[in-house]
Amino acid sequence: MNLLLLEEADFIAADRVVLRDRRLVHMQDVHRAAVGDSLRVGRIGGLMGNAQLLRLEASEAELQVSFDQPPPAKLPLTLLLALPRPKMLRRVLQTVAAMGVPKVVLVNSYRVEKSFWQTPFLEPEAIREQLILGLEQARDTVLPEIVIEKRFKPFVEDRLPAMTEGTLGLIGHPGDYPACPRGLDEPVTLAIGPEGGWIPYEVDLLAKAGMQPVQLGARILRVETAVTALLARLF
Amino acid sequence: MNLLLLEEADFIAADRVVLRDRRLVHMQDVHRAAVGDSLRVGRIGGLMGNAQLLRLEASEAELQVSFDQPPPAKLPLTLLLALPRPKMLRRVLQTVAAMGVPKVVLVNSYRVEKSFWQTPFLEPEAIREQLILGLEQARDTVLPEIVIEKRFKPFVEDRLPAMTEGTLGLIGHPGDYPACPRGLDEPVTLAIGPEGGWIPYEVDLLAKAGMQPVQLGARILRVETAVTALLARLF
Repeated sequence: MNLLLLEEADFIAADRVVLRDRRLVHMQDVHRAAVGDSLRVGRIGGLMGNAQLLRLEASEAELQVSFDQPPPAKLPLTLLLALPRPKMLRRVLQTVAAMGVPKVVLVNSYRVEKSFWQTPFLEPEAIREQLILGLEQARDTVLPEIVIEKRFKPFVEDRLPAMTEGTLGLIGHPGDYPACPRGLDEPVTLAIGPEGGWIPYEVDLLAKAGMQPVQLGARILRVETAVTALLARLF
Repeated sequence: MNLLLLEEADFIAADRVVLRDRRLVHMQDVHRAAVGDSLRVGRIGGLMGNAQLLRLEASEAELQVSFDQPPPAKLPLTLLLALPRPKMLRRVLQTVAAMGVPKVVLVNSYRVEKSFWQTPFLEPEAIREQLILGLEQARDTVLPEIVIEKRFKPFVEDRLPAMTEGTLGLIGHPGDYPACPRGLDEPVTLAIGPEGGWIPYEVDLLAKAGMQPVQLGARILRVETAVTALLARLF
């Protein structure tokens, strides 16, 4: 945790917060904070700044806070991601939040196991928990938007074309395709497939929605690694 | 597992192997392989090719194998990595093997907790196990070399200068430094610090050994994410 993220409910006055949950435990056990210490804080969806620890007890901490710094810029990106297996989903959500992806569409694909859609990690609160961990890691305050699209074809045919409009649409896909471009400034819509990849029918449908396949080399990467590698290369 | 990696001990003839361990279980449970099926195989440290499943029983499988394809090229890189916490170490070892890093030096740093050096995950067999998982994921056969350097100063002063010679030496380090370069062809020695980063004394010593700090932006990434992001950007 490199940033203590504050929720609206934490505030007892405009410049005072009281913490009682895992953030208190983290201050006690990891930061080993003491009264008078200064900590970096951020207001969810808002500015970042500093806090001074006024009171630290076993069950709660009180901090005086001030905010003066905007969070880092997001990437100009919409990430279209075939739903990963539940354990990977949690890590990927942390990673995309940490790397500054503003919008993720979790979409079905032929190679996504049906059971993956039943995971409790897709509940809004569970998703938010992982995103918060990513923001705390990277020092950002703005939650990415996560959209869930359980049906591939209607999403790609009816809603994706409007998303890709005015952006460079790319499909991360192993094969004999152009290399993934580097260091872009323009907005991108990037589609990353499931383990085993998109099937040809899906690549065709994505292409009709304005996206083109690009590759990262012969090595087959886990989803989380592929997401990080593609983002680091694109921007 | 995108490649079935074969050890010398698996061979019962020049073109025959018998498998009994987790690879057998994987063929049965994940691949749901049947006699006659063809699978991608690789010989550890050698060529890749194809296998045909000749016999599949509960306790063992026999395959006929042939090899005709070299593994993918490695990156022109030596990675100098402050020892991560044990759980992260395992994932990082998989990641570096998957991404094609040929040599990793695990080194001490002021911010590496002493207890990390006691982990059983540093045993040679435990390291090898994670590297194999990374090679199986990425379809490669050549194990990276892992060097363990428990003392930072003698390593950096006495052995690092010879390693960095003829390479571009870079320190991944947050701060007011030049941006990490992109798309290099030349050999690189890259140092990635622990959670919390290298301390200034360590950066100075690394700089004296011929390395220069570069940054990836304001976001603070987990070690595994930082490794992937830096490699994807550099090469």
